[in-house]
Amino acid sequence: MAAALEQLSSSKMFDGFNLRFRHQSATLGCSMTFSIYMPPSPASNIPALYWLSGLTCNDENFIMKSGAQRAAAAHGIALVVPDTSPRGLNIEGESDSYDFGVGAGFYLNATNEKWKNWRMYDYVVKELPKAVSGNFEQLNTSQASIFGHSMGGHGALTIYLKNTDKYKEYDATCLIKKNNNVSTPILIDQGDADKFLAEQQLLPRNFEEACKAVGAPLTLRMQPGYDHSYYFIATFVDDHIAHHAQFLKSA
Amino acid sequence: MAAALEQLSSSKMFDGFNLRFRHQSATLGCSMTFSIYMPPSPASNIPALYWLSGLTCNDENFIMKSGAQRAAAAHGIALVVPDTSPRGLNIEGESDSYDFGVGAGFYLNATNEKWKNWRMYDYVVKELPKAVSGNFEQLNTSQASIFGHSMGGHGALTIYLKNTDKYKEYDATCLIKKNNNVSTPILIDQGDADKFLAEQQLLPRNFEEACKAVGAPLTLRMQPGYDHSYYFIATFVDDHIAHHAQFLKSA
Repeated sequence: MAAALEQLSSSKMFDGFNLRFRHQSATLGCSMTFSIYMPPSPASNIPALYWLSGLTCNDENFIMKSGAQRAAAAHGIALVVPDTSPRGLNIEGESDSYDFGVGAGFYLNATNEKWKNWRMYDYVVKELPKAVSGNFEQLNTSQASIFGHSMGGHGALTIYLKNTDKYKEYDATCLIKKNNNVSTPILIDQGDADKFLAEQQLLPRNFEEACKAVGAPLTLRMQPGYDHSYYFIATFVDDHIAHHAQFLKSA
Repeated sequence: MAAALEQLSSSKMFDGFNLRFRHQSATLGCSMTFSIYMPPSPASNIPALYWLSGLTCNDENFIMKSGAQRAAAAHGIALVVPDTSPRGLNIEGESDSYDFGVGAGFYLNATNEKWKNWRMYDYVVKELPKAVSGNFEQLNTSQASIFGHSMGGHGALTIYLKNTDKYKEYDATCLIKKNNNVSTPILIDQGDADKFLAEQQLLPRNFEEACKAVGAPLTLRMQPGYDHSYYFIATFVDDHIAHHAQFLKSA
């Protein structure tokens, strides 16, 4: 039986619709929201492109600020946008820091008992696709791709590279080193005025080196003058949707 | 001497920059913020397109959510975005309602002594253009146009139709009736799923009737299924920038 979804809102945009839902997540043990941009057509076999957001975001930032719906409508691709962590569990200390706890799920399965609800890897890889495909028969979730920003860009890489959840590691650079048969091209944009780049929190060159070592097809574009914000995302999101669209064209 | 501006932020977007400033407004008697999107080129003679926001907004909503920077960059037009009211004056009752007081300046000069600081008409028509032209010599503010949404769409119409501030009226439908020589085309988009349309708060058909009566060139487009949100704005903002660009091309 398809998971029960409560629809919270619907707004037309570029001829498609931004839809927002709430559901009870068995994986996370709390109520979760997510958003879908449903393109105007066709009525069936629509591929799904998952977007994973960065720290502090929920499922609405990308929908409100990226302008990605224009390109998604043009390519006939649905955007599926989850939240970034469990919410409302009131774990002690869950909101003390912007980069730990609420808003900071890092798309992994936590191993510490205290944080047992932080299973965003399983939520994004298993529960959410099932909830989506069970409720929207016009979507073809076997045609799926994944992208994101910051914590979510790294999350998209690790989810793509893990394929299964056999590994314990959640570091894209470590994962690519173990992987000699990545053949699908990866596209990364990085603003060179991004303060987190200067603080050595992002390390895209390490990932680039690792890709070179195993022959993985990476395009890393350094974008002069751009920072870490949604203005940067909005500027380049069309290129990323076009990149994923190459591999999502339905037969 | 040019008004002193404190720059609050700068973020690159579509090769231009979103810039945010604070300044002391003599007209409003308080500190105000505004935003400018400066297109990537040319280095001089850039026309200015003013955007007036709706109720509850400040100068950032349009910059963050509309995606208008793409078309502004393509047309070489600067977007100048003021706040919607004075702030921080602590007038009794100023924040009791979303449609009166803070966030609700209605782009008029108030006549009630208690609200003497609410002079957004003078601020937008006189003080802000002077502050902008005095600080950015690459802008040609004699090449200017104006648009907006909701309260701000109406504000843009009244400011355009008044030309001077001789009138006491602040109703676009009344103003157009007095005006037999409006020759510059006006473009209005209206979502037909907009709840404020159903509540008779918008009355675009009244404005259309008045335009017909005086021969003013109005294009009113009813957009099926669209609501009052920034998703609606983002969908149609390119058409509006192209509309204004027709009249802003520098020689």
